[in-house]
Amino acid sequence: MKVGNIVQKNFKTIDQNATVFDAVKMMNENGLYGLLVTNGDNHYVGIISERSIINRFVLRNVPASEVLVKSVMRTPLPRVMGDDDVKDVASFLANSGLSRCAVFDRNDKLLGIITITDLSRHLSVQSVSEVLLSHRSRKFKFRCPVCMVGTMEPVYNAKGEITVFKCNNESCGHME
Amino acid sequence: MKVGNIVQKNFKTIDQNATVFDAVKMMNENGLYGLLVTNGDNHYVGIISERSIINRFVLRNVPASEVLVKSVMRTPLPRVMGDDDVKDVASFLANSGLSRCAVFDRNDKLLGIITITDLSRHLSVQSVSEVLLSHRSRKFKFRCPVCMVGTMEPVYNAKGEITVFKCNNESCGHME
Repeated sequence: MKVGNIVQKNFKTIDQNATVFDAVKMMNENGLYGLLVTNGDNHYVGIISERSIINRFVLRNVPASEVLVKSVMRTPLPRVMGDDDVKDVASFLANSGLSRCAVFDRNDKLLGIITITDLSRHLSVQSVSEVLLSHRSRKFKFRCPVCMVGTMEPVYNAKGEITVFKCNNESCGHME
Repeated sequence: MKVGNIVQKNFKTIDQNATVFDAVKMMNENGLYGLLVTNGDNHYVGIISERSIINRFVLRNVPASEVLVKSVMRTPLPRVMGDDDVKDVASFLANSGLSRCAVFDRNDKLLGIITITDLSRHLSVQSVSEVLLSHRSRKFKFRCPVCMVGTMEPVYNAKGEITVFKCNNESCGHME
């Protein structure tokens, strides 16, 4: 089964300069658990999910209206092709620590999003279990937007609050 | 298969008067996605998960250190018995909008917790898909702790912030 045949077309998008508050409001109002993120040029630049909000917002310890989606989203946008097989997409999600990603066609046109739940109908029980377990034990790596080599890691203060994310490539050290 | 045979024993607990900040810190440090909640008497009174944090904390729009776990947890504690069959537990989770619950033995001793991921190994593909889809479309009902009849519903201000949770039983109207 090709993933393009089972892609979800009822996704919603949010601007990267919207806040985490706006994002969760939109998710709650629409019964969604993730949103695609666009930049000012209507390019898709990332994806925001419950997991990324828990990992990259809550420990900043500030109100949700004070943190921008672009500081929390998973970027670059995790993506697969519409003619990829569901098994390969499941492996990609499992290995990347993701529950969802974007699906594009060969002309780079967005088809929609796909989640582990969508894939579960088309995999064996063993595969579903492996994907469910694996995507929870792997951490999504936030690639540094400057050096494109390092990974952005949280820096904590004495209270355990996240003060900033810093590139772990010592020759880069980009912070945001 | 009885759920007692596959229960997770590596759960962690947190006091109901700890903060959402403390809870997410503990979850991150231990690679967990939910915690059992205890009261001062070491009784289990609820469960906190990524979903309950998204639904009941983020739209309050205050820092995570200012909201107590007891205001966010799912209570009364969702629970099943160790000799319940995995299929029945899966239906319970699906119908309750839950991804996890506590498992007790006949002497009311806690055995551990069980999640949809744990159950997925022991169900058919069709069942797994149904559970994954269903638990996301149902909303967990927070029973009113005063009248025990109504459901606690969020009340929003003009900005869309949650100001309080109010019992929807008109003859009660309890707020917290």
